[in-house]
Amino acid sequence: MFITFEGIDGCGKTTQIRYLTDFLEQNGFEVVATREPGGTDFSEQLRDILLHSKHKISPISELFLFNAARAHLIETLILPAIKNNKVVISDRFYDSTLAYQGYGRGLNKEDIEKCNEIIKQMGAIPNVTFLLDISTEDALQRREGEKKDRIESSDINFFEKVRNGYLKIAEQEPNRVKVINASQEKHITSEKIKKIIQEIMKI
Amino acid sequence: MFITFEGIDGCGKTTQIRYLTDFLEQNGFEVVATREPGGTDFSEQLRDILLHSKHKISPISELFLFNAARAHLIETLILPAIKNNKVVISDRFYDSTLAYQGYGRGLNKEDIEKCNEIIKQMGAIPNVTFLLDISTEDALQRREGEKKDRIESSDINFFEKVRNGYLKIAEQEPNRVKVINASQEKHITSEKIKKIIQEIMKI
Repeated sequence: MFITFEGIDGCGKTTQIRYLTDFLEQNGFEVVATREPGGTDFSEQLRDILLHSKHKISPISELFLFNAARAHLIETLILPAIKNNKVVISDRFYDSTLAYQGYGRGLNKEDIEKCNEIIKQMGAIPNVTFLLDISTEDALQRREGEKKDRIESSDINFFEKVRNGYLKIAEQEPNRVKVINASQEKHITSEKIKKIIQEIMKI
Repeated sequence: MFITFEGIDGCGKTTQIRYLTDFLEQNGFEVVATREPGGTDFSEQLRDILLHSKHKISPISELFLFNAARAHLIETLILPAIKNNKVVISDRFYDSTLAYQGYGRGLNKEDIEKCNEIIKQMGAIPNVTFLLDISTEDALQRREGEKKDRIESSDINFFEKVRNGYLKIAEQEPNRVKVINASQEKHITSEKIKKIIQEIMKI
């Protein structure tokens, strides 16, 4: 079982992943929670380059770097965990690349799709993806005071494009991608997520 | 004008690039010599990860990393130099990926091609590629005593596969890829390269 969480920065992924992890563990599942980019020593090294590099990284270079981190995470963490009957929950996965680099930064979506095809062939396709949807204004309000990294400090128009991109992805893959209204109280959001997981995993 | 040099480690690329650079400069051209992976601060940072990482890098992750370094080199160095009428000479380019990762390590060639398509769309396709062909035994002899990095210390069978891969690439693209016998005395090799360049560049 492979579950991913998506949404713009400030949508509440971290909290919801914690709630879902607790719920699954209480039901006897072993959970491996990870994040993208990062999740392994090597991928965290790439994450550091992606988020904190002094150099201006060209968009296509950035695309390849995200995928390098992803491929390593899949091979060394996600696939072995799934093989051992663990539930893997990832904070971001390939939908982030399409939403941020494609819809957000305007990178050629075909290029992104070519990379995604290589990644999908590795065999880690999410069973379910929760898109925590929230207005850009609400998200920014939640994040006030947080230390921003290179990607988070982009402007509000950018996040608007990313949000709309996510909603288009959900439209195209309604079976996998579940849109959850994340402006609500966090326990209400959590209950909705649990309900979907209970159905899928027959808990 | 964009010229690339290819061949297994120890084939003599560095020397031949120096000779060709001297020749072109004597003929009034401005030459920018670079290398892959690397060539810019950022790409050299990735080169360092690729060649000296403590972590075992998965083959697909390695593929993406090489392409991240390449995309950055193209955007920040190769394309601007070509635009300014300079001659760019690169020690390795995308043929290395197909020869080493594809033919050498057995990585899916379609995956490599997908990445190459993204790279080619950036607009830096070599006008001519010199494949310095040398037997694996000769190449190893030349390199004796050199400090080996992670990729260079692979075994002799591997280099045999890489060499044959290069020859297949040359067969498929005879107009771009010129096979030069590099077991000969280095000045003879250099004369052959110059002659081809004189014809192409009408010098």
